Amino acid sequence: MKTIIRNGIIVTASDTYEADILIEGEQISAIGSGFPLSDATVIDAEGCYIFPGGVDPHTHLDMPFGGTVTKDDFTSGTTAAAFGGTTTIVDFCLTEKGKPLNKAIKNWHKKSKGKAAIDYSFHLMIGEMSDEVLTELPMVIEEEGITSFKVFMAYKDVFQADDATLFRTLLKAKELGALVMVHAENGDVIDYLTKEALANGQTDPIYHALTRPVEAEGEATGRACQLTALASSQLYVVHVSCEEAVKQIERARRAGADIWGETCPQYLTLDIDELRKPDFEGAKYVWSPPLREKKHQDVLWNALRTGGLQTIGSDQCSFDFKGQKELGIDDFTKIPNGGPMIEDRMSILYSEGVAEGKINLNQFVDVTSTRAAKLFGLYPKKGSISIGADADLVIFNPFVVRTISSETHHMKVDYNAFEGKQVKGAVEVVLSKGKVIIQDNEYKGTVGDGTYIKRAKYGQSLRNAAIAEHV
Amino acid sequence: MKTIIRNGIIVTASDTYEADILIEGEQISAIGSGFPLSDATVIDAEGCYIFPGGVDPHTHLDMPFGGTVTKDDFTSGTTAAAFGGTTTIVDFCLTEKGKPLNKAIKNWHKKSKGKAAIDYSFHLMIGEMSDEVLTELPMVIEEEGITSFKVFMAYKDVFQADDATLFRTLLKAKELGALVMVHAENGDVIDYLTKEALANGQTDPIYHALTRPVEAEGEATGRACQLTALASSQLYVVHVSCEEAVKQIERARRAGADIWGETCPQYLTLDIDELRKPDFEGAKYVWSPPLREKKHQDVLWNALRTGGLQTIGSDQCSFDFKGQKELGIDDFTKIPNGGPMIEDRMSILYSEGVAEGKINLNQFVDVTSTRAAKLFGLYPKKGSISIGADADLVIFNPFVVRTISSETHHMKVDYNAFEGKQVKGAVEVVLSKGKVIIQDNEYKGTVGDGTYIKRAKYGQSLRNAAIAEHV
Amino acid sequence: MKTIIRNGIIVTASDTYEADILIEGEQISAIGSGFPLSDATVIDAEGCYIFPGGVDPHTHLDMPFGGTVTKDDFTSGTTAAAFGGTTTIVDFCLTEKGKPLNKAIKNWHKKSKGKAAIDYSFHLMIGEMSDEVLTELPMVIEEEGITSFKVFMAYKDVFQADDATLFRTLLKAKELGALVMVHAENGDVIDYLTKEALANGQTDPIYHALTRPVEAEGEATGRACQLTALASSQLYVVHVSCEEAVKQIERARRAGADIWGETCPQYLTLDIDELRKPDFEGAKYVWSPPLREKKHQDVLWNALRTGGLQTIGSDQCSFDFKGQKELGIDDFTKIPNGGPMIEDRMSILYSEGVAEGKINLNQFVDVTSTRAAKLFGLYPKKGSISIGADADLVIFNPFVVRTISSETHHMKVDYNAFEGKQVKGAVEVVLSKGKVIIQDNEYKGTVGDGTYIKRAKYGQSLRNAAIAEHV
Amino acid sequence: MKTIIRNGIIVTASDTYEADILIEGEQISAIGSGFPLSDATVIDAEGCYIFPGGVDPHTHLDMPFGGTVTKDDFTSGTTAAAFGGTTTIVDFCLTEKGKPLNKAIKNWHKKSKGKAAIDYSFHLMIGEMSDEVLTELPMVIEEEGITSFKVFMAYKDVFQADDATLFRTLLKAKELGALVMVHAENGDVIDYLTKEALANGQTDPIYHALTRPVEAEGEATGRACQLTALASSQLYVVHVSCEEAVKQIERARRAGADIWGETCPQYLTLDIDELRKPDFEGAKYVWSPPLREKKHQDVLWNALRTGGLQTIGSDQCSFDFKGQKELGIDDFTKIPNGGPMIEDRMSILYSEGVAEGKINLNQFVDVTSTRAAKLFGLYPKKGSISIGADADLVIFNPFVVRTISSETHHMKVDYNAFEGKQVKGAVEVVLSKGKVIIQDNEYKGTVGDGTYIKRAKYGQSLRNAAIAEHV
Repeated sequence: MKTIIRNGIIVTASDTYEADILIEGEQISAIGSGFPLSDATVIDAEGCYIFPGGVDPHTHLDMPFGGTVTKDDFTSGTTAAAFGGTTTIVDFCLTEKGKPLNKAIKNWHKKSKGKAAIDYSFHLMIGEMSDEVLTELPMVIEEEGITSFKVFMAYKDVFQADDATLFRTLLKAKELGALVMVHAENGDVIDYLTKEALANGQTDPIYHALTRPVEAEGEATGRACQLTALASSQLYVVHVSCEEAVKQIERARRAGADIWGETCPQYLTLDIDELRKPDFEGAKYVWSPPLREKKHQDVLWNALRTGGLQTIGSDQCSFDFKGQKELGIDDFTKIPNGGPMIEDRMSILYSEGVAEGKINLNQFVDVTSTRAAKLFGLYPKKGSISIGADADLVIFNPFVVRTISSETHHMKVDYNAFEGKQVKGAVEVVLSKGKVIIQDNEYKGTVGDGTYIKRAKYGQSLRNAAIAEHV
Repeated sequence: MKTIIRNGIIVTASDTYEADILIEGEQISAIGSGFPLSDATVIDAEGCYIFPGGVDPHTHLDMPFGGTVTKDDFTSGTTAAAFGGTTTIVDFCLTEKGKPLNKAIKNWHKKSKGKAAIDYSFHLMIGEMSDEVLTELPMVIEEEGITSFKVFMAYKDVFQADDATLFRTLLKAKELGALVMVHAENGDVIDYLTKEALANGQTDPIYHALTRPVEAEGEATGRACQLTALASSQLYVVHVSCEEAVKQIERARRAGADIWGETCPQYLTLDIDELRKPDFEGAKYVWSPPLREKKHQDVLWNALRTGGLQTIGSDQCSFDFKGQKELGIDDFTKIPNGGPMIEDRMSILYSEGVAEGKINLNQFVDVTSTRAAKLFGLYPKKGSISIGADADLVIFNPFVVRTISSETHHMKVDYNAFEGKQVKGAVEVVLSKGKVIIQDNEYKGTVGDGTYIKRAKYGQSLRNAAIAEHV
Repeated sequence: MKTIIRNGIIVTASDTYEADILIEGEQISAIGSGFPLSDATVIDAEGCYIFPGGVDPHTHLDMPFGGTVTKDDFTSGTTAAAFGGTTTIVDFCLTEKGKPLNKAIKNWHKKSKGKAAIDYSFHLMIGEMSDEVLTELPMVIEEEGITSFKVFMAYKDVFQADDATLFRTLLKAKELGALVMVHAENGDVIDYLTKEALANGQTDPIYHALTRPVEAEGEATGRACQLTALASSQLYVVHVSCEEAVKQIERARRAGADIWGETCPQYLTLDIDELRKPDFEGAKYVWSPPLREKKHQDVLWNALRTGGLQTIGSDQCSFDFKGQKELGIDDFTKIPNGGPMIEDRMSILYSEGVAEGKINLNQFVDVTSTRAAKLFGLYPKKGSISIGADADLVIFNPFVVRTISSETHHMKVDYNAFEGKQVKGAVEVVLSKGKVIIQDNEYKGTVGDGTYIKRAKYGQSLRNAAIAEHV
Repeated sequence: MKTIIRNGIIVTASDTYEADILIEGEQISAIGSGFPLSDATVIDAEGCYIFPGGVDPHTHLDMPFGGTVTKDDFTSGTTAAAFGGTTTIVDFCLTEKGKPLNKAIKNWHKKSKGKAAIDYSFHLMIGEMSDEVLTELPMVIEEEGITSFKVFMAYKDVFQADDATLFRTLLKAKELGALVMVHAENGDVIDYLTKEALANGQTDPIYHALTRPVEAEGEATGRACQLTALASSQLYVVHVSCEEAVKQIERARRAGADIWGETCPQYLTLDIDELRKPDFEGAKYVWSPPLREKKHQDVLWNALRTGGLQTIGSDQCSFDFKGQKELGIDDFTKIPNGGPMIEDRMSILYSEGVAEGKINLNQFVDVTSTRAAKLFGLYPKKGSISIGADADLVIFNPFVVRTISSETHHMKVDYNAFEGKQVKGAVEVVLSKGKVIIQDNEYKGTVGDGTYIKRAKYGQSLRNAAIAEHV
């Protein structure tokens, strides 16, 4: 099966040029022009950009949280991702202390197998560093191809790991070739502040933000960075929301540490005032870390522009406003944390970032796709428009102006944090492994075609094509 | 005329993949495999990388300096560049205060026309901001395509401009779409220190370094960065040599300024002790800024890795040891500043950077080629392996270990600063605009095939392929 | 002659305690209680603080500027100073390029001799580093006791010195034992911006501030700090007005440099909006550097609190609104720079600093008196309540609330920048060398009793009382 | 009883002057000259400095640690302190989790009552924030006058508190008027590293230092600073040993936080190589934090000079080499941490600091006495040479050069970390509350004359003498 995409403008993390793409089977086989059209499906991308399919390194699908379960499962979540131009996700596999990692991984395979519209993989949460965990980790990497471990510094008495666990995970990751991810907020401080707020009758959504101050994120980020430097290991800080955290990451990188930072569309474009909306509407904007004062947005954009932050995750973690967010109507701590973002991640970045001149087209591709593919061992199959890469492609029309709404989005939730927002640019066609899965604003694929990806070790996918022994 | 490069590993500033390249006429027309070989010249790149031809943004060919003239002119200089994998240079056109810019440009065309082995363009030195200069500048940009202006903060009573000139150049460049370049050293301080040294009988080459301290570079770099921020303009700091300067650039970028930094192979790999060599050998290592203490090298490499510095120039400015460097045998201030570097620029970066794990392959391409092409309005014709780009390509064999020597190099000078140094990797074939110009270690091209390039305005070449009006 | 001050609370730069002070002749002879009252003048300080008389390190009396002369001469200026609790000033002796320093000093002696109400000394402006200047400097220090040199980095074509002059002054000061002072603003940038503003018809007072941006001060401050570090010399930055400059000073001090910073009451309490006042009222607030955005005030106070800045000068430089400031009614560049501040310097610091909890009582004494006395070679005669020190004392009543007004102030000018401002605390009695000069809100002294002080070399006054040879 | 000290040079935290001191009863009653000698004890201080008695804010006397007890108890410890010029100590009262604070305080009173040669007070360790602790704290402050609480971030499973405890202690201290002290090292990291070292057979003393890296201290210091800023509370970081920690404190202070830092003589003058001494001698140099690389010393000295650090504690915690340090001969973790320093604290500071020109005389007094008195509510009775202050005085001869040795020191331990070191300056006479307790190198006092001091709340002692209501 051949497909030709004609007349588009190819955009990679470094280059922008006009050319046709020839796809044979699941992969890109040639880039150029004048390919024979006779035996091929031809897609006209005139006036459109062609991006590598997005790689979303941060999703929570079908995940239990606070007594409920995220609304989007692997089917609705990955389908919505596809509508938004994302063709690969890496979801967080939660583990339980005292139970085998393998059990958790099996559970996550069960949630996802045969249900995904796009390819996917798993990060693995590490909550402790027991002998059992140490025994299982090599298997996790070698057999499951799970090469990234997530440690929570927040959610006291739930997910939170102590510094010893974080430090040992960093050392072990270094040894085994994995990337450590942290949710960097000081859980002790937040735990105390939330209890105090409740004790004072402060139950509204805004107190979610007020009890998770920027200092708590800045502190934890600095701590993780310093432990990483000490361990000579590698770190990826998820969902960076504020200047205090950015500074810590930049400082550590300048000092030579191997540290990376992710932010999310919500932190770049929404601010704390959203949580003050009346009628409990603020609950729709409850993320952890919380939305910040507006001034932080400039810092985050500038860090993306100059290399202080490197990726964009959605932190997709969706709950209905009715029935789910409402669990916290009398107590903000019971509002399930998170929101629907998997679908709009790239749209927001393009419209607010590229169209507003804050980042350029190549940076857009890098932060939404290529960099995550490289960091998480998916490259060069993912994140690249190059010969031999998976034909995961997005045809994106920058001329369209459209309006985001829960009425038209494809996530299962009953609201959208960007309801009514006009954005520049629209995904016209999406291909996953050579097949059109989105076209004419419809899902054309087959659920279950998305398959699990075993990932390369940290740093290794960059060397796949390297041939000299010293490289 | 068709050429096919087979079996190589294409490396761009973001991607690394195996594919064949089809060249038709002067440009790359297709990337893929299975191109019909019959009517094409076929080059086998098995086991080799294919890089976009290097872009050297910093050369001084056929330039008068201190009563002598650089040994390499446009013929020998560009030929040597080609041997080293560089296929485009941007040379500095010197001007004289009180004389028309146009006269200087004509002079530079005269030096170069019909004499170059590879494509070239000019930066223009700005020494004053007279009414005449202001009148000429729009012509310089529109007609000559010279979109970068160099201001010297050092060389008192020779090239040095005052802060008013620098500030006005920044404002004018912003208005006209040009990039301002600075040689950032405090010329007043250096002038005083050199006179004092001579008065104290300190005439040896080492005093060149000791009279140009890091503070003088750090100070001037900070000054240029702050004036740029104030002018909301854009700046490119040439030949950054030390931590003090790197910090200033990083600080300004973090604060949102549009500032870029270049370093050179010599600062990354050689240190101040070279200037202490006996028998006046230190004179071979006289650059301005001077070589620094070894500890600065780590800072420079880390800045390249994390984005604090973005390009590598050669600062090619070659003088024979015999007869030229020797002018300063009794007085270090008479040693012509500079050295031969145009040929070894990429080799050193590859061997010391990539092979040593300090930067990766894609970063290598970015800093030696793509980024400079983008900043100086040469992209996407230069600096890119993509459809429609000039077929300026380097086939590079990473397995070869070779020894640098003035006996085998192609610059006209009688010494090489890396004499005897073993480096990993060798340029095997170089193509310029589709023609093989280097092969079997011989120059196969025709001098004069290298032509002058009118460059796009600052920021514009990045938008060449952009189609949406808001981009 | 004996005087006893009873029942007050003595405040020094480090201590606060209740005791009586016995003065014999010009000096403090004992501190304690129960001194025999019979043959002494007794002053009751019940309920009052006793501070060492203020040392104002930054005044311009009887100074020509922009075609006019400051309104306050040595008589009115020093009398007003006394009313405000200041008992020593160091005034700036202006020099002219090409003319002997000695001539300028003689001129300044002529202006002041027999006319001062309090003791005084001179700083000397250095505008060039000619052979004549180099020859004269040792005499200036040894014979005149002038041990501080001021260099202007602003006022292009008037006072501005180039970097070579600044650097050489730093080196010479190091050699001779003097402290270099800088007015740190980039004069080139300001010169250009002011000309542009005028060319655009922007003539109102606010353009004075808008053409002297914080970057121009931050840049010049950083430059001066770096040249000082390079020269291993000592620097005192006058009238620091903004965060950008504070950061540079703090950074240099952390790196080990011997650098000090002064700010002024106006920068701590007034902001740029004053210059927007209608009816040309903004002209009253024209200082250089200009008043800044309000946010800088917190930075300045915090720097005083934590040691980043160390002294408070008045930068007294007074011109009438009528007839003098009005010179600039059609052109802000013709507004004489500066304002009346010699009288209110300490009041403002006490009321806005101590009474508001921003600095404590001892810090108040340090920044308004002791530190300047130490830095400028006046200590321990000045700036100290200790045995043998000059009995320059201020009895200050913190309970009084009074209103500042030009109707009641003692400076000769027709306005006060704090007109109508209520301040906590009032000077009740001032003694200069043992004599009461201010009491019952009247001047009780004899003009001319204030005498010229030859000052010790930099660093030396601190060692006056030291006895061990290694100190 | 009257005593007169004649002819000395009084040195306070801000002033240096020659005068006699008259002491009546326990306090200083007058400073001046010509006091009638007839009915007084006269001490001639000709050629000597007179300092306020040292205030050592950091001692561990009679303290159980690791299965043994510090060699010096309140008698030998305070006597040795007196020999060294220290006249007040604040010792750490250790508490046990789950047991009443009151019990611990009683225990500490029992250890000290009637046994001290100089006045003393207690800090209180806080290990948890239980309801019982919260109930007791007001009593601790109001009745016991204990206004400083110590939290350990290290010594996992022994003293270490979690972040919640630290944060709550900061909030409570703010409310009650106490100063929080932290031992800032990341205990989790250290715990892991020490276990790993032992598992690898690394049992020598040097591994004590290698398992407590600077990053562990820098991280914890930053964490404590950020929690303090968040709590708007006040913090005192004990025994700062390295640049990483200094930077965190300076950064927080610049941002406006109320944070103070202490270092110790050992960190200023000894380095990590001491721990490598053969024959287990390294055990004598086991402190926590450990001695660091030599380069940190300059940073610490410069921080004392410029105000980044403010006090000097001894961290006195002495164990014999024989029998006690030797407990760890096969396992560095069993070496009791700490060393004898209470006696030499001021000598080292004077000789290495003042005599070497790193700090001046007034800074010496401030960091060894006055500042601690102010921070810990002892001022103005302690830390001050002023009327009404306790006559705790040190007559110090700067001309004497003497040699430190365990053979001559007065601490009970069998070694001295400065054995054989020559220092400039010697304590000649020490008075405590008006009585001579050290003279002719002998203890002249009566053990038990040192009494317990109830301290003022944080910030309050500075305001003791303030009379205006707004102060």
